[in-house]
Amino acid sequence: MTFQDYFPIWNKLSTNQQMRLCSNLLLRSVPRGTVLHNGETNCTGLLLIKSGQLRAYILSEEGREITLYRLFERDICLLSASCIMNSIQFTITVEAEKDTDFWLIPAEAYQQLMEESAPVANFTNELMASRFSEVIWLMEQIMWKSMDKRVAAFLLEEAAIENSDELKITHESIANHLGSHREVITRLLRFLQNEGMVKLSRGTVKLLDEAKLAKLRG
Amino acid sequence: MTFQDYFPIWNKLSTNQQMRLCSNLLLRSVPRGTVLHNGETNCTGLLLIKSGQLRAYILSEEGREITLYRLFERDICLLSASCIMNSIQFTITVEAEKDTDFWLIPAEAYQQLMEESAPVANFTNELMASRFSEVIWLMEQIMWKSMDKRVAAFLLEEAAIENSDELKITHESIANHLGSHREVITRLLRFLQNEGMVKLSRGTVKLLDEAKLAKLRG
Repeated sequence: MTFQDYFPIWNKLSTNQQMRLCSNLLLRSVPRGTVLHNGETNCTGLLLIKSGQLRAYILSEEGREITLYRLFERDICLLSASCIMNSIQFTITVEAEKDTDFWLIPAEAYQQLMEESAPVANFTNELMASRFSEVIWLMEQIMWKSMDKRVAAFLLEEAAIENSDELKITHESIANHLGSHREVITRLLRFLQNEGMVKLSRGTVKLLDEAKLAKLRG
Repeated sequence: MTFQDYFPIWNKLSTNQQMRLCSNLLLRSVPRGTVLHNGETNCTGLLLIKSGQLRAYILSEEGREITLYRLFERDICLLSASCIMNSIQFTITVEAEKDTDFWLIPAEAYQQLMEESAPVANFTNELMASRFSEVIWLMEQIMWKSMDKRVAAFLLEEAAIENSDELKITHESIANHLGSHREVITRLLRFLQNEGMVKLSRGTVKLLDEAKLAKLRG
């Protein structure tokens, strides 16, 4: 499998554009935990994931976090190239949640394609619309869903991503994903344990009753 | 002043595209309070504001609201034409906050331009990036700013929009803007009144000390 199998609009590029894109591509491998983009790395470029998993989040001045969305195989991280659009006035942090192989498309090369090609520009629109939709969904969760439902939803999502009902994750890390505090998460996890939905042990949350968790999630 | 003075990329359209766009345009006037777009009106089209003011917000199933952003003269409402992008998976409600004159650009006409013209597609990208930035800013406010600071910020913003320190606004309405409850807002406004920052009377909030409010806003 090569880049052209992963890049959805490859066939909408001219031969010249395909060659230019390829000559600028960089294939990179990073271990889990690597920060690929943040406010200091000015304009990293677009990241097309070959394998692995990325997490995009925002950070407060005090170091609090909330996960905006995750990116998986074949997903493209656009906001790590925010310099290509003047109107993007925010900074996300992008971190590898698993060992990740990805193609880096440098910002200038992509921007040139976008400026000359309506299909590339419209594809970029769709990418941004997808992320925007995820953020609005998150906003609705934050505004109108109680934290117990959000923890239940997060545990079920994690179990699906990891394909395992035994999650290696700390309470602190769940709090960072959900933009909450460790103490709040610990209290809620204990409630879920009392209700027979999970079993807690050091660094692990085991899902005992996914149906009940799904019912709580609503 | 005509449409071409208001539409930022008019000069990037071909004569044929300009003519097609003009032949599809509708100039509309609506009184304050009119809902121009919501989940039921499938795809209203883009709205370019000639004069007036629009508010875009999301609604919960229980009828709770939160204002995402406002649009003023020369702004373009893109998300009222969400059907032009497959990846927009959410619905906003758009309401006239003042008597408003606007041009309606029908969705199909705009979509056709976007598909054939890289400048139009890239302009659309910038529009979406602007709104996305406002929503991320709001998310940061919700996550990391206490409600008293958000009320102070809202009152100062309203005073600037209305160019008046005497705001005709109910506590209920402030709560809807900020995604809060009336009781919470009433309590906070009374606190601001005790601190000498505002004076409350029926249906009115008068700003007494903008410097102190600005300091609270941070």
